[in-house]
Amino acid sequence: MTSKTREDRTTADSGRYPVEGRARAVIEGVSPEIDAGRFPIKRVIGDRVVVEADIFADGHDQISADLLYRFADDAEWMRTPFVALVNDRWQSEFVVDQLGRYQYTIVAWVDHLKTWRHDFDRRLAAGTHSLIDIKIGADHIAAHAKRARGEDAKTLSDWAGELADATDLDAATARALDGVRLATALAYPDEALQTQYGRELEIVVDRERARFSSWYELFPRSTGSNGAHGTFGDVERLLPYIAQMGFDVLYLPPVHPIGRGFRKGPNNNVDSEAGDPGSPWAIGAAEGGHKSILPELGSLEDFRHLVGAAADHGLEMALDIAFQTSPDHPYVREHPEWFRWRPDNTVQYAENPPKKYQDIYPFEFETDAWRELWQELRDVFCFWIEQGVRIFRVDNPHTKPFAFWEWLINSLKTEHPDLIFLSESFTRPKVMYRLAKLGFTQSYTYYAWRNTAWEIREYLTELTTPPLSDYLRPNLWPNTPDILNEYLQSGRRPAFIIRLILAATLGASYGIYGPAFELLEHVPSEPGKEEYLDSEKYQLRQWNLDHPNSLRDLIAQVNQIRHDNAELQQNRTLHFHTIDNPTMIAYSKSDAERRNVMLTVVNLDPYHSHSGWIDLDLDVLGVDETRPFQVHDLLTGDRYLWSGRHNFVQLSPDAIPAHIFKIRRHLLTEHDFDYFM
Amino acid sequence: MTSKTREDRTTADSGRYPVEGRARAVIEGVSPEIDAGRFPIKRVIGDRVVVEADIFADGHDQISADLLYRFADDAEWMRTPFVALVNDRWQSEFVVDQLGRYQYTIVAWVDHLKTWRHDFDRRLAAGTHSLIDIKIGADHIAAHAKRARGEDAKTLSDWAGELADATDLDAATARALDGVRLATALAYPDEALQTQYGRELEIVVDRERARFSSWYELFPRSTGSNGAHGTFGDVERLLPYIAQMGFDVLYLPPVHPIGRGFRKGPNNNVDSEAGDPGSPWAIGAAEGGHKSILPELGSLEDFRHLVGAAADHGLEMALDIAFQTSPDHPYVREHPEWFRWRPDNTVQYAENPPKKYQDIYPFEFETDAWRELWQELRDVFCFWIEQGVRIFRVDNPHTKPFAFWEWLINSLKTEHPDLIFLSESFTRPKVMYRLAKLGFTQSYTYYAWRNTAWEIREYLTELTTPPLSDYLRPNLWPNTPDILNEYLQSGRRPAFIIRLILAATLGASYGIYGPAFELLEHVPSEPGKEEYLDSEKYQLRQWNLDHPNSLRDLIAQVNQIRHDNAELQQNRTLHFHTIDNPTMIAYSKSDAERRNVMLTVVNLDPYHSHSGWIDLDLDVLGVDETRPFQVHDLLTGDRYLWSGRHNFVQLSPDAIPAHIFKIRRHLLTEHDFDYFM
Repeated sequence: MTSKTREDRTTADSGRYPVEGRARAVIEGVSPEIDAGRFPIKRVIGDRVVVEADIFADGHDQISADLLYRFADDAEWMRTPFVALVNDRWQSEFVVDQLGRYQYTIVAWVDHLKTWRHDFDRRLAAGTHSLIDIKIGADHIAAHAKRARGEDAKTLSDWAGELADATDLDAATARALDGVRLATALAYPDEALQTQYGRELEIVVDRERARFSSWYELFPRSTGSNGAHGTFGDVERLLPYIAQMGFDVLYLPPVHPIGRGFRKGPNNNVDSEAGDPGSPWAIGAAEGGHKSILPELGSLEDFRHLVGAAADHGLEMALDIAFQTSPDHPYVREHPEWFRWRPDNTVQYAENPPKKYQDIYPFEFETDAWRELWQELRDVFCFWIEQGVRIFRVDNPHTKPFAFWEWLINSLKTEHPDLIFLSESFTRPKVMYRLAKLGFTQSYTYYAWRNTAWEIREYLTELTTPPLSDYLRPNLWPNTPDILNEYLQSGRRPAFIIRLILAATLGASYGIYGPAFELLEHVPSEPGKEEYLDSEKYQLRQWNLDHPNSLRDLIAQVNQIRHDNAELQQNRTLHFHTIDNPTMIAYSKSDAERRNVMLTVVNLDPYHSHSGWIDLDLDVLGVDETRPFQVHDLLTGDRYLWSGRHNFVQLSPDAIPAHIFKIRRHLLTEHDFDYFM
Repeated sequence: MTSKTREDRTTADSGRYPVEGRARAVIEGVSPEIDAGRFPIKRVIGDRVVVEADIFADGHDQISADLLYRFADDAEWMRTPFVALVNDRWQSEFVVDQLGRYQYTIVAWVDHLKTWRHDFDRRLAAGTHSLIDIKIGADHIAAHAKRARGEDAKTLSDWAGELADATDLDAATARALDGVRLATALAYPDEALQTQYGRELEIVVDRERARFSSWYELFPRSTGSNGAHGTFGDVERLLPYIAQMGFDVLYLPPVHPIGRGFRKGPNNNVDSEAGDPGSPWAIGAAEGGHKSILPELGSLEDFRHLVGAAADHGLEMALDIAFQTSPDHPYVREHPEWFRWRPDNTVQYAENPPKKYQDIYPFEFETDAWRELWQELRDVFCFWIEQGVRIFRVDNPHTKPFAFWEWLINSLKTEHPDLIFLSESFTRPKVMYRLAKLGFTQSYTYYAWRNTAWEIREYLTELTTPPLSDYLRPNLWPNTPDILNEYLQSGRRPAFIIRLILAATLGASYGIYGPAFELLEHVPSEPGKEEYLDSEKYQLRQWNLDHPNSLRDLIAQVNQIRHDNAELQQNRTLHFHTIDNPTMIAYSKSDAERRNVMLTVVNLDPYHSHSGWIDLDLDVLGVDETRPFQVHDLLTGDRYLWSGRHNFVQLSPDAIPAHIFKIRRHLLTEHDFDYFM
């Protein structure tokens, strides 16, 4: 059993004295803090970290408190003061400007010198101040002088002497009120009686892409010409197409050799025929495993070339890491101890009884050789890191132990703090949240199944406010190779537009699985399923990227808007506004100063035109109730003149069923012209 | 700096493996838990302690979890299983039946045997079960058999053998489904792979009076006849009067010698005359200090006799402990190191600049001799404990260090777990809450300043729901010697009745300062003040207890209702019901099974009659929407027939402006008679 944590330097043990019974300040209710400091919060470089706490002491003395923070746990603590808000709540902040782990904690103390000055001001106002009061101050200052360093020590001992020896009340009062020397003195508090918060809290600082990213998922197998298996070279030829749409992450499903045992045929058929490529997630064959490349895609050299070419187009490569094997994976032969064996001397394949997935072997994480297994899986990441990959989409992390991921991600990020891990977990919420807490940089969400205004509002509010927003960064996907939701199955172009615009404006990070998405691919494998018919997971496809219905231009426009408006590059300021039509939704994002504000309004019905009155929270928009303002639709270029809280919107699926408004507040009125004077 | 807390057996330290990487279950979101276990929760003897937690693991295996609990930290852990609720939330409970400190924590694990049985049931249902599946179960059972004790070991190894050797599927299936032996096996999980929650949480278990108490405060000085200073003997003669009103705690202001230096005269006059008794809170004189008795009240022997006589009347004595001294207190001479000295060699008196309280010396808790000071103050409590006192009202605890109180209360309750400490702190909320957290058994509240329906509803909801209700027990006082609120200053009898009934039905613990309260004493010292005119704090008073306007009979009736109805003896089930008149308030309290329910309705306007429609939460009342029910007013005996959510009430200050209803659900209808059949 671990020992109890004590927040302050006190003890609850009966009869035993605390170490320092005179440390009177207490610190509680610290925020942000996840699970009592068990997990770090997440920030990106350049972020302000705002820390709040309840800080108080007995009695009526004045309190001071400092926020201590440092980069890595061997650095010197830096400190910045807290300021009091209301109701014993205090706030401080600092900026994180290095990738990696920061720590922060709090010290607080009863500040006798500040109390003396505070009381002296009140005595002075009442005319009851005396030389005795000034001599009491001299004693306090003398104590600070003893702790002062360098010239400060002399400055303060001189000041204490002046006050101690004073005989003229008015002259001494003037000296007692010296604010400059007071500030010097306050910098040397008595550390012996300070209370230190009992926990050192941590921050993982990521690069900006952890917060703001636009993902494009692509099956390389389907990029070939004339029915040929696509290659990395084919993918390179698509880079301009993807870059023009404004994406910055290009994510590929597993690129490894594909197993032949129990290989699946088209549409997840349990039988395959010669020539069927199989599922990229059935990893491992005679050609190799997780550190090898499917020969049809090309060589390792080709892959590295693709990584570089993508970078030239502003695209960062993301790889899918799926920790499972086909029956043919070399691990099965080389490391039988990493699998679970059945009494009939066969390996336990994946099962969800009575369903069987005989083409997939899970790892046995309860093996006695778990340390070796963990190390090997870590080496898989290291291998691809060496090839230049810094972003990983991790397949089904919720089917591997949490402790494994925590160890893996922390140990990899210690060496490579620029790594980004996207958790592909669609399971129960607390499991998904735990994966985010323990270290995943971004997380898939239930977005695909949140299609009504009420659902979106509830869910996005949960995702974008503390405590969740301190550790989970949502990545919103309208579709994935596994999820063609019923809303998109309508096949209506407006449905795709709506889901795209919602994802791109609700989420600082979002992604699409293309070209299925921009080409409005919408037929399910069978009614009631979310699988695509003729899914690329099991066969090659050919896409007509120049189809006139393609959404590529709209996607490019939306991504351009995201790039041009920093408000859309974060989720912290997401705010929903009321609208009196339940099939419509309205929300804004602003920068912290509310100088720039985007307001998005979407008609969620892909079949009908809708209109409604928005009830705007003008404070959130930074708009003056008494002056008109302009809303400028960045999609159409239209500008509307609005005024006050209540404003009318009408959106038709026949046009673009959404407004992405930039709020333009500074309209000219007669007050702005000379002739008004 | 203290080390980081880890909730599970994992580590975030980069590169280093956790102790046991195969412990796959995680435990988080434990409730109740105060400040990450920094403080204990509070319960009374006989309470069920319901513990919830989020418990889950990776993958789809079945989970098991146990709640571990023990009395005192050297006892054996007892265990009781958790059951799953929804959304990975689990619940368990146990009963505390001893006074003192309990501890509890949680273990959880992936339960392979339970998983095997769960999967086997599904295979069986699908008809895909096989002998291999049964042999896998045999392996699990054999592992449990190795850990089993006594006969269980043989039972299980026999079972494992039967299944391992089976050749007939149907026969083996029947044996595999053996629920009795399964239950035996499940009791021997593999502890090596269990996850233990990282904290041991604590419970302070008090006696029932901590939760349910009715206090009567009295100045002994005013119990004398014909203007004489009252004595403990006079108080004894009043015991039947107090007991008849149904109180169970009799609380006296400080009974110690009163200082003469700077003694206050009537109405807090800075000058006193010979014969003025001074304030009981100016403690200490030549006759002694905190362990002495004011000679005018009697001897220590008289006090002990009073304690016994009170007990004979069902009244428990509570003493006021105020840690401050008059300038005449022996401590000032004997322990000058316990006071703060000014440069002019005088002791620092109490001040709130520019106000001065020269009759009161505070202790200097930052003295180097703090340990000796703490010990002496503890000895003060021990002295009165030896005289038979077990309840203490502590004066202004928020002006002494929190660490001191935590040490004091914990160390005293280790020896005397039946002690009750009431925190007399009227200051900022977080300070008051901290005092409750660190150990005070009950707390004064802002009740006196919560007079409108909205205020009462908001405040009482905060006080009676977690997290506050896990550590703070409110004690509601309509008046105190320091607080004659403006509502009561109206002097109207209905105002006193309203405040009494609210306190007695909202709060399981409440108290009045009498006889001022029952005699409708209501004139302030000056307009805009809450001090009483001619306050007993500074002078003797004579009370006509037989005044015809006295509320004594109503108070007796209300206390009788509290005694007869256990629903009113706790706060946990307090629930407010909507009423469409904002000057009225309605709330219920029920027992956990909702068999017994009290519904109180109060007109808060002491001047006018009001009526309104209540919108009842019938689920909370345990009432069937389709059947009428009776509400029985225990104050008047009136019975009303109600039906459904909406019911009418009218209350006039000319009569009793409140209903205290008992809900009577089981009314006869035609269904209950033979002839309906």
